[in-house]
Amino acid sequence: MALIVQKYGGTSVADPERIRAVAEHVAFTKRHGNDVVVVVSAMGKSTDNLIKLANDVSSVQPDRELDMLLTTGERISMTLVCMALAGVGIDAISFTGSQVGIITDTVHTKAKILEVKGDRVREALAQGKVCVVAGFQGVSTDKEITTLGRGGSDTTAVALAAALDADSCEIYTDVTGVFSADPRIVPQARKLQHINFDEMLEMAGAGSKVLALRSVEFARNHNVPIQVRSSFTWEPGTWVTSQEPSMEDPIISGVVTDVSEAKVTVRKVPDRPGISASLFEQLAESNVNVDMIVQNTSTDGNTDISFTVPKADMKVAQGIVESVAKEIGAAGIAQDDSIAKISLVGAGMKTSPGIAAKMFRTLADNDVNIEMISTSTIRISVVVAAADLEKAARSLHTAFGLDSGQSYSAPLPERK
Amino acid sequence: MALIVQKYGGTSVADPERIRAVAEHVAFTKRHGNDVVVVVSAMGKSTDNLIKLANDVSSVQPDRELDMLLTTGERISMTLVCMALAGVGIDAISFTGSQVGIITDTVHTKAKILEVKGDRVREALAQGKVCVVAGFQGVSTDKEITTLGRGGSDTTAVALAAALDADSCEIYTDVTGVFSADPRIVPQARKLQHINFDEMLEMAGAGSKVLALRSVEFARNHNVPIQVRSSFTWEPGTWVTSQEPSMEDPIISGVVTDVSEAKVTVRKVPDRPGISASLFEQLAESNVNVDMIVQNTSTDGNTDISFTVPKADMKVAQGIVESVAKEIGAAGIAQDDSIAKISLVGAGMKTSPGIAAKMFRTLADNDVNIEMISTSTIRISVVVAAADLEKAARSLHTAFGLDSGQSYSAPLPERK
Repeated sequence: MALIVQKYGGTSVADPERIRAVAEHVAFTKRHGNDVVVVVSAMGKSTDNLIKLANDVSSVQPDRELDMLLTTGERISMTLVCMALAGVGIDAISFTGSQVGIITDTVHTKAKILEVKGDRVREALAQGKVCVVAGFQGVSTDKEITTLGRGGSDTTAVALAAALDADSCEIYTDVTGVFSADPRIVPQARKLQHINFDEMLEMAGAGSKVLALRSVEFARNHNVPIQVRSSFTWEPGTWVTSQEPSMEDPIISGVVTDVSEAKVTVRKVPDRPGISASLFEQLAESNVNVDMIVQNTSTDGNTDISFTVPKADMKVAQGIVESVAKEIGAAGIAQDDSIAKISLVGAGMKTSPGIAAKMFRTLADNDVNIEMISTSTIRISVVVAAADLEKAARSLHTAFGLDSGQSYSAPLPERK
Repeated sequence: MALIVQKYGGTSVADPERIRAVAEHVAFTKRHGNDVVVVVSAMGKSTDNLIKLANDVSSVQPDRELDMLLTTGERISMTLVCMALAGVGIDAISFTGSQVGIITDTVHTKAKILEVKGDRVREALAQGKVCVVAGFQGVSTDKEITTLGRGGSDTTAVALAAALDADSCEIYTDVTGVFSADPRIVPQARKLQHINFDEMLEMAGAGSKVLALRSVEFARNHNVPIQVRSSFTWEPGTWVTSQEPSMEDPIISGVVTDVSEAKVTVRKVPDRPGISASLFEQLAESNVNVDMIVQNTSTDGNTDISFTVPKADMKVAQGIVESVAKEIGAAGIAQDDSIAKISLVGAGMKTSPGIAAKMFRTLADNDVNIEMISTSTIRISVVVAAADLEKAARSLHTAFGLDSGQSYSAPLPERK
């Protein structure tokens, strides 16, 4: 008998009909001899609606109250899933993050999980019950209700799977798995059967929205095999595991695109030690999430510093950069919202030289100008003009053999 | 410095604008040197919406899950009230029933309060904060989230006021106080300045919806002065206290009308001991709430038994009554949905003979036929045809001097 954690996102429990479909699938899994723990997000747009309600009430929103407000969304969906399970004859019991013993630090709105006790879940499983757990939430060491931030329900699911030593963690969403590229941008993109944790981490970091970065980190650190699947088709999805690619696997797993960032350039910065530090320290203090940074010192002792930030943080960033630019005697700042980041991710990169060269050549052959470059062991990212996004992504997808319909030949983890 | 508990019902926090108005009033009370504890209901129709959602998902609704579902409504409104308070510069903190330590028995959907700890509220008050508490909910001795049933938020407010030894408990609702009759039925009805607990209890029992019966019982047992007020006009409302009426007070405080019940008659019941017991025991076991019972034994050894039940319970009652009627050899059963109950309530009745006679004479003079009668020390109730409701209520209101605009001359409790 396997223990499976199934996490259902907001679109999967968006209305009564979808909730009943989820209950049917949970019942199916349970009746096939598995123990099941279900983790749910809030229904559809309900979290957004709660935020809108709060905005309509007051512009002052203490974090503690906001956390309590938002956690109601998952509480509603967990009770409804339990009722739907009861309706199909499955004995189920719901637990809040607090009842499960998901202990977090005291940082409201983006708390980190310190410990998962899980005693009540273990007891209920021992009694043959399906457990339905509210995602996204925990209780702090100060006994306050906290939330885990964006993608928090994925983290709840993976953390619970780790604490319960589950055989796998299935993340149900509105796509059928992890794709070699975003199908809306690259029509020939295909679903991956398998990808490893490091690749998934790089993909999430590069802008893929399929799995939240923190949940993948958690899965890697605790070696929890994840399967990303669709609750609309129920077809087998993409496995995310620790398995290293074999020689037969393609070198590149996917092309990740991201248009959520903007570029800022500080022009003619005097070439003195400590200039960059002063700029990026101040941005960090204001919680501006700087992604790529490029600095090139020219021969005349001046340098341009360019970096990308989420468009959402742009307003805050601009104020800081303007003041720093004046302080350090820079010539001025420029800002570009029309950029796109394109990343190649693949564990095979580690052992295959020449990937970057091939990438740059492909882009050049397609008249795509590269504005910024950043690399890691298994990722190369470039920033290009937003207008070139589709051309660049499609040509790279083709050039690295991802169109072929060829799938991973490495053995898949056994489906429990 | 006084400690005031203010309870706001669903209509008082129905939308962001209403919530901000509540925050203004709480801030006003706080800035006038009072400590304030706010108890809130769920916003407007949100509890009904949650029930509808549950019905759409499944007809099987475990009580434990239903309780968890419904408690989210008050959690939402308490956080929004805190945000609105923060918006007007008042330091506020919200607490769930569980966080306040409202300990209940384990009967889900209608739990009874066993104890109110209130430690966190006391601490927060000592720090100068306004406390905002979710009404209607508690945590059971089994550590499960429970709800207190209909009118539960009133009970939360009164129980908290008792536990904190508050100076008064203000219940804000959509009417300006307790009236001498329902103004929709008796246009000349007027607001009472004062009424005592016993009268209020009888009024609630007779069908008045202003205050939930259990909250009044709680207030009487712990001697918590209540003021019923409107959050739409903020004008002084009706005080409900232990104060006995003085000689100058009118004998009758109000005419209470109720059209929520139906009448059942079991005809020609054999006149043997134990017949009534067997009938009403079975109704009680099925949680049918029997109100008035009339039994008249005729000279031929047969008797008719009539009783009233809430229309909502009629379906269940009918099945039981039909089976019992057959068992005991009764001639048959009759059912009448078109009845109205009219009650006179007044503490002065205890010392004034002839009230019943005057009531019956008034109804007779107005051609209103009395179908059933029941009395307590300070209440007389009659059942009449629903069509006679307005005529009966208005004539009684006039006959007992309630139209006059005369108000209580007894001294009012001092407003803190």
